[in-house]
Order: sequence, then C-alpha cells, then structure tokens
Amino acid sequence: MSTHKEIVYTARVEFGDCDPAGIVWFPNFFRWIDAASRHFFAGCGVPRWEETTKTIGVIGTPLVDTHTRFVKAASYGDTLEIAVRITEWRDKSFVQTYRVTRGEDLILECEEVRIFAAKREGGGIRAVPIPPSIRALCE
Amino acid sequence: MSTHKEIVYTARVEFGDCDPAGIVWFPNFFRWIDAASRHFFAGCGVPRWEETTKTIGVIGTPLVDTHTRFVKAASYGDTLEIAVRITEWRDKSFVQTYRVTRGEDLILECEEVRIFAAKREGGGIRAVPIPPSIRALCE
Amino acid sequence: MSTHKEIVYTARVEFGDCDPAGIVWFPNFFRWIDAASRHFFAGCGVPRWEETTKTIGVIGTPLVDTHTRFVKAASYGDTLEIAVRITEWRDKSFVQTYRVTRGEDLILECEEVRIFAAKREGGGIRAVPIPPSIRALCE
Amino acid sequence: MSTHKEIVYTARVEFGDCDPAGIVWFPNFFRWIDAASRHFFAGCGVPRWEETTKTIGVIGTPLVDTHTRFVKAASYGDTLEIAVRITEWRDKSFVQTYRVTRGEDLILECEEVRIFAAKREGGGIRAVPIPPSIRALCE
Repeated sequence: MSTHKEIVYTARVEFGDCDPAGIVWFPNFFRWIDAASRHFFAGCGVPRWEETTKTIGVIGTPLVDTHTRFVKAASYGDTLEIAVRITEWRDKSFVQTYRVTRGEDLILECEEVRIFAAKREGGGIRAVPIPPSIRALCE
Repeated sequence: MSTHKEIVYTARVEFGDCDPAGIVWFPNFFRWIDAASRHFFAGCGVPRWEETTKTIGVIGTPLVDTHTRFVKAASYGDTLEIAVRITEWRDKSFVQTYRVTRGEDLILECEEVRIFAAKREGGGIRAVPIPPSIRALCE
Repeated sequence: MSTHKEIVYTARVEFGDCDPAGIVWFPNFFRWIDAASRHFFAGCGVPRWEETTKTIGVIGTPLVDTHTRFVKAASYGDTLEIAVRITEWRDKSFVQTYRVTRGEDLILECEEVRIFAAKREGGGIRAVPIPPSIRALCE
Repeated sequence: MSTHKEIVYTARVEFGDCDPAGIVWFPNFFRWIDAASRHFFAGCGVPRWEETTKTIGVIGTPLVDTHTRFVKAASYGDTLEIAVRITEWRDKSFVQTYRVTRGEDLILECEEVRIFAAKREGGGIRAVPIPPSIRALCE
C-alpha cells in the first residue's frame, strides 16, 4: 500500500504549446512536469530555492535521469492533472514520479531521478546528501 | 562496428535558456533534441512534414518514450553538439539516439522511441507503418 | 466610460520561467499574453481555431504589432492576473490590450494589433475582414 | 549616416517554434531577439553577466519597453538574420533595435528600451547609470 504523499498540479494546454501537427509539442510536457516538481515541494512546505540557497546551500533539484512514456496526445483547451510523488529516497538522489491525466485518459507517465544541488567552488554544481529538514517535510 | 548514419546538430545555449540556478533549464534540452531529430531527417533528404502530410499522410514523428541521462550541466555561452542516429527500425516505431557534448564533455545521452504519425479520423493521431521511402533515405 | 468586455486570465510564474537574474525572462510574458488573448475569445464563446478553420477559414489571430511597457519584475511563486479587452475594431484588424498585475502591483501593460488570418493559396497567411459572427460575440 | 555598430545574429526556425497554424508562434521571436541582444554585447567584448555581477554589479539588461511590428510570417526551415544596433544612450537606459530578415524579406522590426540592472537590497532590481566601461565597448 502506497503511503507516499501525493500532490496534484493542474496545467492548461494553450494554443502556443502545440506544434504544426496540432498537438502538444513534447518539451512543453517537461515544462509542466518541472513546475509540478517544485509545486510538490512548495506544497510540502519547502521554502523557495532562493531561500534554501541562503540557509542550507541548496539551489534546486536538477534532473539526473528521466524516463517518460507518452500514451496519448493532448491539445489546446485540455486541462491536465499531474499527480506527483516521491517514491524513493537514496543517499544523494531521489525518485520523483508523475502521472499526467486528462479526465480518465492517461497522457503520460514519467519517472525521474533528481538531486539536491549546491554550487561547486569554481563553477558548476554538485549533489549534496538529502537534507533531512526537506525530507522530513516531504514524507 | 556502427554503420548507422550520424548527423550532428549544433545548439548555442542562451541566457534565457538558463534558470535562476544559472544552468540550462532541462526542458530546453528537449527543445534542442527535437530540433536535432528533424534536422536528422532533413539532412537525410526527407521533405518537410507539411509536404509528407500531403504525399503520404505523415504529419511528423511524435515521441512515444524517452530515456535521458543528464551528466553535466551547461550554461549560456556554451555550444552543444548533438550527434543523432537511428539505431533501430521496428514495424511501427523507431529508436533515435542523441549524444550531447560540449567539446570533450558529455552533457547528456538520450534514447527515444518515436513513431511516424498520421491524423486519425475524428481527431487525434495514430502510428503508421514505417514509410519505406523515408527509411531508405535514413539508412 | 469603458464598456469593453474584460476577461481575466491567471498565470502562475514558475521557476523555469525565470532567468539567471532570478526574474521572469520576458518572452514568457508574451507566452501568457498570447494565452490570455485566446482565453478572451474562448470566454466570449468563440470556438477553437481548429473549428473556425473549417467553418469560416480563420486559422487564428496573428500579431501585427505589439507595444509593451514593463513596469515591475516578477518571479517564481507570483500569481499574475492579466485583464484583457478589445478596445478597437478596424476593417481587417483589432486592438487587444492587456494589463498584468500582481495584487496591487502593475507588472506590465501591453497593446497589440492583431488580425484574423486565413491560409493564403500557395503558402503563407493573409488578413480577412473581421468576421461579424466573432465580433458579435466579443463586444 | 549611421555609424552605430551592427552585429548580426542568425536563428534557425524549428518545427517546435511553430504553432498549429504552421507559422512561428510569436513569443519565440522574442526568444531570438533576446539572444541577439546579448550576442550584440558579447560581440562587442562585454563579459558574461555572471562576470559583470561580480565586477560592477550588473546582472543583465532587462527590458523596459518593446515596440515590435510583425511584417511577414516565418516557418520551420527558415533561417532568420537579426541585425542589432544600439541607437541611443540615455542616462539610465538605452535603445536597442532589431531588424529581422529572411533573405530579401523583412519579417519584423523591433525597438526596445533596456536598462542595466543591479540587485536591489531587499529583493527586486533597479536601473543603474550606463556603465562607461560597457558603453565604450559598444559604440
């Protein structure tokens, strides 16, 4: 039985999100997925990354790996619901999953690995151990 | 020994492609990957989808599945090279792979499954068998 | 006294909408403005452009001119309200205006000229006279 | 006789830059215009904003006003040339202009007012006087 916290993000598909074939141009799905990811943390009470940059050095949760399966096309006028969960916590990464639906229709499923990142001395970013304060809010 | 045709697409990373952490916001990688996908077909001599819509009913090559592994971050000012190949032809889908580099650095690797799509009567799209005329150009 | 119909579109600013300076990257404002434009027509009862393409040949309302004044920056977490009106009907174009606010703050003001467009024989698009059926719904 | 420095930025129009009407979705023009703006500064020898943030506190050149006139539509496969100049220097702002062409065709003309911005104490941004070191490089 899953006891993972689930938070739903709603996205409207707009005309400009669609390509000449009349369907959502797929990078836009990742735009919504990324928004849904942060919305999950915000919904759990995690402060803005601007804030965590100052307090614990975390600048955000960059993506390390995504596996996404597109099931049905969507088009403008559609409203999408994106159900987000964190299904696994590892030492320096976590698994975040997304189920995107339009009413009864499954549009896509996505499973990501993300890290909590800090600035690296001399440029670039590095993964930090999962901040316990954040994990406690999200479980 | 790989005998798959490889075509390289070049993308510049712009300021606006980066997020408040100063690195490429990941949906933009998919923007470039999609451009590299079509650039591959164009480089093989496949006509515009507008043209193929009229001749063989193919409106484009929607994504069915993507698996992408992000290795290093990129930022504005970077020039990315995206090496594209089709590594497998199935009955109604094909596998297209991408290796994104910045000089010696590997930025990401991506493996996609795409279909050739036609409009479905009554709305939506459907996969069609791989058009032999297109496959012949791309092998 | 203005008697122009006004319809409000709400946009959330997401992390990925912001640039390395931490504020909304301005092309994203135009993304929301374009969505607000179509939302205005939808709110007036105008069908999808896919529908009007079939019935009266209108494929959309491309932009001819925009004049936009940016007053305050916005950032992720902000909710923007975009109040849309059509303030003038000309023979083959119309003026659509936008006032974008965040609570009491004025973020930007935008005045556009748009046309109703049809496909031109041989490629490209052309302006058509304002469709009376659409104008009647929007006034 | 104009003696303003002019630097040309080249943009390729991709499939995903176009909307269901098959033409460039206009916010994408602003994406390219913003890239052309920074490309102008880079071409003049101005360092990255990340660098100027440290040296003179300038985080970028946010837009204050844009007036853009769209003349012809563009579509995927097109190559656009964007000729950029700074036509006026004011105390705390400057005028940057863009002429976008596709071969002989004028696609759009754009005139912007931008500022050099610094972070404001307590959040937000503010205009700073034109940095003489930057102006000297761009004239």
